[in-house]
Amino acid sequence: MAYNLLKGKRGIIFGALNEQSIAWKVAERAHQEGATFTLTNVPVSLRFGTIQQLADQCGATVIPADATSVEDLEKLFRESMDILGGKIDFVLHSIGMSLNVRKGKEYQEANYNFYEKTLDISAISFHKLLQTAYRLDAISEGGSVVALSYIAAQRIFFGYNDMADAKSALESIARSFGYIYGRDRKVRVNTISQSPTLTTAGGSIEGFKSLMDFSERVSPLGNATAEDCADYCVALFSDLTRRVTMQNLYNDGGYSAMGMSEAAMEIYEKGLKASEQA
Amino acid sequence: MAYNLLKGKRGIIFGALNEQSIAWKVAERAHQEGATFTLTNVPVSLRFGTIQQLADQCGATVIPADATSVEDLEKLFRESMDILGGKIDFVLHSIGMSLNVRKGKEYQEANYNFYEKTLDISAISFHKLLQTAYRLDAISEGGSVVALSYIAAQRIFFGYNDMADAKSALESIARSFGYIYGRDRKVRVNTISQSPTLTTAGGSIEGFKSLMDFSERVSPLGNATAEDCADYCVALFSDLTRRVTMQNLYNDGGYSAMGMSEAAMEIYEKGLKASEQA
Amino acid sequence: MAYNLLKGKRGIIFGALNEQSIAWKVAERAHQEGATFTLTNVPVSLRFGTIQQLADQCGATVIPADATSVEDLEKLFRESMDILGGKIDFVLHSIGMSLNVRKGKEYQEANYNFYEKTLDISAISFHKLLQTAYRLDAISEGGSVVALSYIAAQRIFFGYNDMADAKSALESIARSFGYIYGRDRKVRVNTISQSPTLTTAGGSIEGFKSLMDFSERVSPLGNATAEDCADYCVALFSDLTRRVTMQNLYNDGGYSAMGMSEAAMEIYEKGLKASEQA
Amino acid sequence: MAYNLLKGKRGIIFGALNEQSIAWKVAERAHQEGATFTLTNVPVSLRFGTIQQLADQCGATVIPADATSVEDLEKLFRESMDILGGKIDFVLHSIGMSLNVRKGKEYQEANYNFYEKTLDISAISFHKLLQTAYRLDAISEGGSVVALSYIAAQRIFFGYNDMADAKSALESIARSFGYIYGRDRKVRVNTISQSPTLTTAGGSIEGFKSLMDFSERVSPLGNATAEDCADYCVALFSDLTRRVTMQNLYNDGGYSAMGMSEAAMEIYEKGLKASEQA
Repeated sequence: MAYNLLKGKRGIIFGALNEQSIAWKVAERAHQEGATFTLTNVPVSLRFGTIQQLADQCGATVIPADATSVEDLEKLFRESMDILGGKIDFVLHSIGMSLNVRKGKEYQEANYNFYEKTLDISAISFHKLLQTAYRLDAISEGGSVVALSYIAAQRIFFGYNDMADAKSALESIARSFGYIYGRDRKVRVNTISQSPTLTTAGGSIEGFKSLMDFSERVSPLGNATAEDCADYCVALFSDLTRRVTMQNLYNDGGYSAMGMSEAAMEIYEKGLKASEQA
Repeated sequence: MAYNLLKGKRGIIFGALNEQSIAWKVAERAHQEGATFTLTNVPVSLRFGTIQQLADQCGATVIPADATSVEDLEKLFRESMDILGGKIDFVLHSIGMSLNVRKGKEYQEANYNFYEKTLDISAISFHKLLQTAYRLDAISEGGSVVALSYIAAQRIFFGYNDMADAKSALESIARSFGYIYGRDRKVRVNTISQSPTLTTAGGSIEGFKSLMDFSERVSPLGNATAEDCADYCVALFSDLTRRVTMQNLYNDGGYSAMGMSEAAMEIYEKGLKASEQA
Repeated sequence: MAYNLLKGKRGIIFGALNEQSIAWKVAERAHQEGATFTLTNVPVSLRFGTIQQLADQCGATVIPADATSVEDLEKLFRESMDILGGKIDFVLHSIGMSLNVRKGKEYQEANYNFYEKTLDISAISFHKLLQTAYRLDAISEGGSVVALSYIAAQRIFFGYNDMADAKSALESIARSFGYIYGRDRKVRVNTISQSPTLTTAGGSIEGFKSLMDFSERVSPLGNATAEDCADYCVALFSDLTRRVTMQNLYNDGGYSAMGMSEAAMEIYEKGLKASEQA
Repeated sequence: MAYNLLKGKRGIIFGALNEQSIAWKVAERAHQEGATFTLTNVPVSLRFGTIQQLADQCGATVIPADATSVEDLEKLFRESMDILGGKIDFVLHSIGMSLNVRKGKEYQEANYNFYEKTLDISAISFHKLLQTAYRLDAISEGGSVVALSYIAAQRIFFGYNDMADAKSALESIARSFGYIYGRDRKVRVNTISQSPTLTTAGGSIEGFKSLMDFSERVSPLGNATAEDCADYCVALFSDLTRRVTMQNLYNDGGYSAMGMSEAAMEIYEKGLKASEQA
């Protein structure tokens, strides 16, 4: 279903790699809802992914940019406004990467160069994005910026490692800049805290499949999918949520408000029995 | 603007009294978005308010019901399904009343009959509503229930009195029943925590006008209005948020994520100066 | 170890039933730390429990009182001040009971008489306690009041039922009255949110043993015991925490800040395997 | 009053500069309670401050260390264990600095070298401290680590700038490492979120005095002082809180649980009146 919720709106979408990406689904839904936008990612992701296919499908231009580079971000905002014909109405930040995770370094044996990179790529990039947009006055009044987060910012999941700290910083940046950008230009800044989602990034976390199963059984509505997230982004980019800002919004089938469900406990109890028998 | 977001959806809206009511605005927006619904309130409010005018405007039927009466609620759900031609897709609970507040009894001198009434009307009524709907299987799969709350459930505002406890209980009921109703019927249950809003109910709180001013200056986007709340309700009733449940969602211009803004501090500093001079 | 942390302090301890009770352990520790106090419970619990043994051990007087009766509470405070020789310095509220849980009525089939009783006994009793003390000016400046809570106030645990709503209301009352009592008499009011603890009350919750196991494996320090809770209460009653108020303090081995531990996931994965084989 | 709560315990205290410092008061209280410890700060702070006087008073050795240098931290832990004669039982991290604040660069015009320094000094230093201690196995079982934080990690205060993001990251590190260190060595890791406190660091924040006044009037028990914080640290270092970990604990006279007090609103209303007259 489409509703023309984003008709006439211009956007920039960070982080689409391939069809599994949440950003990919957001682009598809934004297109359905009548938005025009540019797509961006780092050059290496553009090479390995299939983003051009998405761009063709949505009539979007792909602009390579490293989100940790203020220079690239400035170029991205300028070109996007040129191509789209005006100020930007919505931005999606779907960026996260930890070399400590990738290289199998556990949290207590962090490599600090990697740690700083995790923060730079996954959190500070959001500040840079916002500061660049602010400086260029590139986002229109009433505009909406969303970054994707995860509940590890509040509660520790083994294996999620330094990404937990990065997501905490990311959510803080959303609040800090949300104050400034709201006060000065009436721009909203929020994060969506999404269920674990089987994307290329998500799949690299240790024990991810079991975690998805647990999360699925704990959540009364089950895990939110990438498509659900795209729907929520549309709602947040639209004019329906013009006074919602500085929030971390869970799109997670209820997981965040759960301690333990009967369905997950049933599995756990089977595991206990199996342990005792062993 | 209308998007047909609620086309074909059937609803029940509690708590419209007059044009200032949030529930009134929700009804107007739901109508614009293509929904059909019934309106309900207690008989005394139906007499003193102007709800029939709203009903005429929206093609809605008014069904009197006391939300603390399971019998009334059952009748309401049955009649609503009859009139609307099927199960209910969305419900708004906008009900709250404290006799302690009305009678000027401060929190530390609570009348316990009043206190229990505050809980019964403002919180337990929500459990009764949900339990009745659940028992009758009156809400369709994917349906959405929203109750209106206030940040006093988390942080104390002098003068809000026992309504703070009622709102805490209300939000807990949303989580508790959200688990059950999500698990068994895929129905969402959320609360919206709204900016202070100048309604007939809101206006009766001690020091309300100054609080609204403070809240307005602290919130980077200013206080959310009743109209903003109606928009957010539409988003939550729609299919855009199908995996969002058991959440308390702030619609408050950023207030909940603020400690202190420059704009509010400016006023406060003037007050300090005036105090010193006195 | 004892430190004389409560030397010269006078207290009232609600809710000791038998040696398993948290309140029992608190009494023992308070005694060790030099406090004098009275013990109280409802007559029926006094009959079935072994509280007199505790009283003998601590040199305490037992005063029967129904915490839902303002009259009883007034008598309790007056007699306690008489016996102990002055105003009260600390109070422990360890009271909770749900007839819906006891009678096996699930949350979606609540009996509303039972539901109101749950609230009255488990939450409103705390308001009554505080209001009575306030009215009699029975708590000395710098005094400290603690009520025991559980994380179900924030996150739903199947089977905990309407006690979740009661604990939410209880924590709200702690905040609401904490404002009043702090402002007017410098009295602290806090709740401790304790790990699941195998007491007579705890043991009656559905699936309690498995929940304790899960909680034990998720919590990096394991479940906090009744003895740990007693230690924390001593810290909160002492002068070491004179500016801590209106807080909900987790004594839970880290559980509340956890999503998933490796140790719990190991069991869950065994359960998954067992399910697949079945 | 002293209770011998830390008798026989060995500690390391970071961040004492002068008599106003919270770390200074913690050292004095820890000494009173029977602890032995080393004191540390960066060389430049050692030069400008008066820490040697504190060291003399407490029988402590001062060890210069830059908390962003793993090498320095390793030396610090080794020497401390040598001097104190065994593993460390408690650590206080009271470190924070923002060059953006110092140089008057607002949040939306951040210098990213400064921003990274803010994170490195105020947050990542805590990870380095913990990782170094973990690697050296320098903290004894049951040990306790506390870092000082501020509520700006949750709610935005204009002028606090990038320190808000640093405190969010700091609190996340406490949770992330708290899981590891709890699981593997039974060591607690917590943060105390302290009232605004007039220290050399605090005083440099824009509009600090008015903020302190506001905070004082909102908090039912008034602002917690450095002495109050020292008391709370003693409780957290002691054996009274052995199952408390991964928590952010407010020591703030109730501020964090307040929306608005009557006392603060009175001043605000005077400011409103003064504004209208102008």
